[in-house]
Amino acid sequence: MQGFELVRDLAISTSSKIVLLVIDGLGGLPDPSTGQTELESAHTPNLDRLARTGNCGLTRPVGPGITPGSAPGHLGLFGYDPMAYVIGRGVLEALGVGFELEQGDVAARGNFCTVDTGGKITDRRAGRLSSDESTHLCEGLDGQEIDGVRLMVRPVKEHRCILVLRGSKLDARLSDTDPQQPGMTPLPTTALTPEAERTARVVNEFLRQTQIRLGNCHPANMLLLRGFSERPRLPGFNEVYRLKPAAVASYPMYRGLAKVLNMDVLSTGPTISDEINTVKQGYADHDFFFLHVKGADAAGEDGDFARKVAVIEEIDRLLPEITALSPDVLAVAGDHATPATIKGHSWHDVPCLISSRWCRPDGLAKFGETECLKGSLGIMSATALMPLVMAHGQKLTKYGA
Amino acid sequence: MQGFELVRDLAISTSSKIVLLVIDGLGGLPDPSTGQTELESAHTPNLDRLARTGNCGLTRPVGPGITPGSAPGHLGLFGYDPMAYVIGRGVLEALGVGFELEQGDVAARGNFCTVDTGGKITDRRAGRLSSDESTHLCEGLDGQEIDGVRLMVRPVKEHRCILVLRGSKLDARLSDTDPQQPGMTPLPTTALTPEAERTARVVNEFLRQTQIRLGNCHPANMLLLRGFSERPRLPGFNEVYRLKPAAVASYPMYRGLAKVLNMDVLSTGPTISDEINTVKQGYADHDFFFLHVKGADAAGEDGDFARKVAVIEEIDRLLPEITALSPDVLAVAGDHATPATIKGHSWHDVPCLISSRWCRPDGLAKFGETECLKGSLGIMSATALMPLVMAHGQKLTKYGA
Repeated sequence: MQGFELVRDLAISTSSKIVLLVIDGLGGLPDPSTGQTELESAHTPNLDRLARTGNCGLTRPVGPGITPGSAPGHLGLFGYDPMAYVIGRGVLEALGVGFELEQGDVAARGNFCTVDTGGKITDRRAGRLSSDESTHLCEGLDGQEIDGVRLMVRPVKEHRCILVLRGSKLDARLSDTDPQQPGMTPLPTTALTPEAERTARVVNEFLRQTQIRLGNCHPANMLLLRGFSERPRLPGFNEVYRLKPAAVASYPMYRGLAKVLNMDVLSTGPTISDEINTVKQGYADHDFFFLHVKGADAAGEDGDFARKVAVIEEIDRLLPEITALSPDVLAVAGDHATPATIKGHSWHDVPCLISSRWCRPDGLAKFGETECLKGSLGIMSATALMPLVMAHGQKLTKYGA
Repeated sequence: MQGFELVRDLAISTSSKIVLLVIDGLGGLPDPSTGQTELESAHTPNLDRLARTGNCGLTRPVGPGITPGSAPGHLGLFGYDPMAYVIGRGVLEALGVGFELEQGDVAARGNFCTVDTGGKITDRRAGRLSSDESTHLCEGLDGQEIDGVRLMVRPVKEHRCILVLRGSKLDARLSDTDPQQPGMTPLPTTALTPEAERTARVVNEFLRQTQIRLGNCHPANMLLLRGFSERPRLPGFNEVYRLKPAAVASYPMYRGLAKVLNMDVLSTGPTISDEINTVKQGYADHDFFFLHVKGADAAGEDGDFARKVAVIEEIDRLLPEITALSPDVLAVAGDHATPATIKGHSWHDVPCLISSRWCRPDGLAKFGETECLKGSLGIMSATALMPLVMAHGQKLTKYGA
């Protein structure tokens, strides 16, 4: 029996409440001028107090040296082995916009892009098209039927959209059409297995039609597709842990992920404050809250050290509103590091903390990478977080006689 | 090859001697008024000296967040993956009282209990019946034969007893009859697989007879059964490690566990001092000693912080009698934490130390949870202890060319 199955076996439903605050891209690297990471540079008296009284450590998202995408980063925090459970980008985006994927549907993430008269990509994001324009373009492409397959195109945000294919015997094992760099022409998709050949033909015919329909829509005169995928069969988070979980996330992809895991996705506003208010409103009806804050990752991706610090400081300022709810367990973690110096996700271990009445206090001076190394959680697999959080919530019964 | 098989492959028999002192329930949580755990509060100059000169760390019994029962807690310390090797409660109790289980026997743990005139349980332990009364009741139930199956009932201690079924084609996959709370009626057992249906019928007929026979024996007027199990097939500890192991434990269940692992179980008295004398007497004839002290766990279960401290201090006072034997390796560990504040087993990592001439001294100030975090053993799986102990005893040959 592996750990995940064991936890599933031992989990019991109780009245205790757990809040898991995920600060996306939390981990960082030092500003060369100060030697302090984003988290260490931030003024965080509330997080620091939890680091003193709670248990700290570092989570390793997937494995040593592995930089995770958002989905494996979160799956690990939720206790699912991110190497065993894989969720495609298309599925995530589709669920994120509330698209009700049926079993057997094939979903892809789309980007409206700009191509020149020679067909070469000049801007992979079509000048970050407005959401309104994108919605209009999607309407023009939506609802086609090719070889008995229905093709649905829906806007996500700005230049992003989704394509969903619905029909019999579809297969998502298709290559991306996005060459990932300007100066290249969009690629046709190719079947990665013979069973996917028909699906590839349908997609390529759709792209041919798209090229015609978007011909006069400069700058959004072409569409790139990637992350073809089908809805995976994952054991529900509610079922594994016997929880009534609520997801509070303003960014669509994380709502999508939560839906795949059968969490209740609560409607919320765009700010951290909105999200915390949503937790408050749903507090009585759930016993687990996945509270996702996107800003730290976005700032890290932009290489904006100061903005990432500011996002962390904003979280810290609002933290008393969460602790005022007196959850039995409060955990703070990140799905991966997004160091501003790297301007992207990285493989570095990520600070985390657990606060509950059952913590032997680590007494750390600060919530930060260097101090967390001294914490009692040690360097642990991200998948260890949920079992620990469940234990601190006294939601796991004893194993064995 | 897994670690366990590798160690088994590399183990050699030598003249060096190992003492593994297991302080049951060693790990703890702070007394809120002092911030110190039971072990940290105890005055332990001898253990502290070993923490200075030896190697320290924390063992994780089963996995993060998992609270182990006694059997998985010990199996881990003995190097057996507690998720791969499972020992039922009935088997443990039966072996603990010296009952010679045959392959194919089915054993269950019994509790004499009190039921009211409506058949509802009013006391799951029949007022903690005396061992004498329990012995008398067992005699009245022992030796029946139902459908060709022989039923043996033997006393354990106070209200506890065992039931062993012997016959052909028995199957232990049966549900507990103990509803685990007062106010409920004892349940019939049910077969968890079709192969166990006959065994279930025999047990239920036995329970019907028992109800009649105990009808006038208030407060012990009924019997609850749980942990139906068969003797598992485990590789012998002696064979895996090529040791001549001796077990010294005053509490029956740990003797039972040692028997399952093919250790020599030495007769001993009830006190720690008795147990250490038993080690001394057996010292020439064995090269590994599993020395088990129950008192710390019992005090923790009772929520008696001061008594747990006192047990640890008593061990420390007697420790020079063990070190005077000059074992090549002395290891001190716990099977799990039993914080007095929790009044039960917990999932927290457990302090451990290894003392041998091959230690690079950790130089810790004290043997305790907080200091052990700084030790060179780190936070490790409990199953890592035996390979380390064997290495320090120079009982593992080199792996590979």
